[in-house]
Amino acid sequence: MPFENLSCQKSFGGWLKRYRHRSRTLDCDMTFAVYLPPQAELGGRLPVLYWLSGLTCTDENFMQKAGAQRVAAELGLVLVAPDTSPRGPDVPGDPDGAWDFGHGAGFYLNATQAPWARQYRMHDYVVEELPALVEASFPVSDARGISGHSMGGHGALVCALRNPGRYRSVSAFAPIANPMNCPWGEKAFSRYLGEERTRWREWDATMLIADAQEKLPILVDQGDRDDFLNTQLKPEALETAARAAGHPLTLRLQPGYDHSYYFIASFIEDHLRHHAAALGT
Amino acid sequence: MPFENLSCQKSFGGWLKRYRHRSRTLDCDMTFAVYLPPQAELGGRLPVLYWLSGLTCTDENFMQKAGAQRVAAELGLVLVAPDTSPRGPDVPGDPDGAWDFGHGAGFYLNATQAPWARQYRMHDYVVEELPALVEASFPVSDARGISGHSMGGHGALVCALRNPGRYRSVSAFAPIANPMNCPWGEKAFSRYLGEERTRWREWDATMLIADAQEKLPILVDQGDRDDFLNTQLKPEALETAARAAGHPLTLRLQPGYDHSYYFIASFIEDHLRHHAAALGT
Repeated sequence: MPFENLSCQKSFGGWLKRYRHRSRTLDCDMTFAVYLPPQAELGGRLPVLYWLSGLTCTDENFMQKAGAQRVAAELGLVLVAPDTSPRGPDVPGDPDGAWDFGHGAGFYLNATQAPWARQYRMHDYVVEELPALVEASFPVSDARGISGHSMGGHGALVCALRNPGRYRSVSAFAPIANPMNCPWGEKAFSRYLGEERTRWREWDATMLIADAQEKLPILVDQGDRDDFLNTQLKPEALETAARAAGHPLTLRLQPGYDHSYYFIASFIEDHLRHHAAALGT
Repeated sequence: MPFENLSCQKSFGGWLKRYRHRSRTLDCDMTFAVYLPPQAELGGRLPVLYWLSGLTCTDENFMQKAGAQRVAAELGLVLVAPDTSPRGPDVPGDPDGAWDFGHGAGFYLNATQAPWARQYRMHDYVVEELPALVEASFPVSDARGISGHSMGGHGALVCALRNPGRYRSVSAFAPIANPMNCPWGEKAFSRYLGEERTRWREWDATMLIADAQEKLPILVDQGDRDDFLNTQLKPEALETAARAAGHPLTLRLQPGYDHSYYFIASFIEDHLRHHAAALGT
């Protein structure tokens, strides 16, 4: 395999494995995690759910905290979790050391502005390079779903909306639904993409949904006690755009839940079943 | 309530709450976590499972990684997770800054040697002070179970074996089964209890089981790829002692599993059901 195995741990009868590889797209070493359910040893090819994490996360948070392996083991679903940005001493980060830009905050787009444009190409990494590696190395099919949380929930929506035919299912937890119009998104987009806001539209799910060629049903869960709901996340903008476009969106406002992995863990089973139904496990 | 609420997060329809309080037993501020399942709002009193974590852990690891809340919410079981030692600038730690003694490594015993004896009294804290606080403050009954991992798995066994009538159920994941005869235990016991090894017997589950007045059935899960199995954990010593004493012990060697929370998460449901059956949820 064109990568180095970092760890291998049994989980719900399957195996959680972490790898390091040299990414051509990002020009740096990247880690990612793969959960292979017990069915991976039976000789067939399994569908894959890609999980994109939020700001500050790595490939580890989801596998440690979401409790997804239990359901993936039941459904025969492979889980793949990449890191959230290029990293390393040769990768430029936030000039002020902030946590909402740069390392851990790649926003799953392809940057166009120096010094970010050379390595901050997480969209191409997540949509092209990583699946090619996974599909060449593990017993998986080309049936792909994508989901994520916060920055990664938005990333999942954008990956699906920009690439018709590439995914069979999509969902998100508390996505930054309209990043053009929130502080996290404005900071990231102005640096990664430049100050010309018309260029931002092609990386904003609420803008993309208006013209989506493929109308994959979207499942979104959002806690109503999420501290970021009104300032950063704005799911109502996505809902309005989806309704105008006739794009099927199920937005569930979950009473009492916040932005944490306790929220994700409470509803991950519903999301995995949503994906499994479309992926044909 | 005689403590300060640090956080409150919805999880599987219930609430995970963290608190800080001044412990009289330990003479320092302590944090603990309580998971209240949805049934806690129905007016009755629920049984409690106490969880004792392993070396280096705090009250947070179990709640973040074990996935126990899902099953506790189904069964109507309250979960309580204390910290693993007294802590703070006024609490002496390991003189060499090691992670296997002192802060995060209280071994759930009552120390007898200076300078540890004054504050390292985790047994009394876990068995007496914390339940008294919990039972005065939350809608819980006096039906108590106890479980834990590694150092905390052993702690759970010792708490149950030393206190007949206090718990209705006990289990452990990868306990340090015979600490008198392993490096972690020898280091801790020689400092907390002094060099006289006969005094160690009253804090070693494998020794205590020989004379246990109450024979609560014990469930133990142990991974067979646990790096600490042969040097530190030694479940076969406990098994031999239990057999000799006619003490009911189910020791399950789980093939492929290691010492991590991925192992715990894979089998926590079985443990919660073991406790719930005895606690009458």
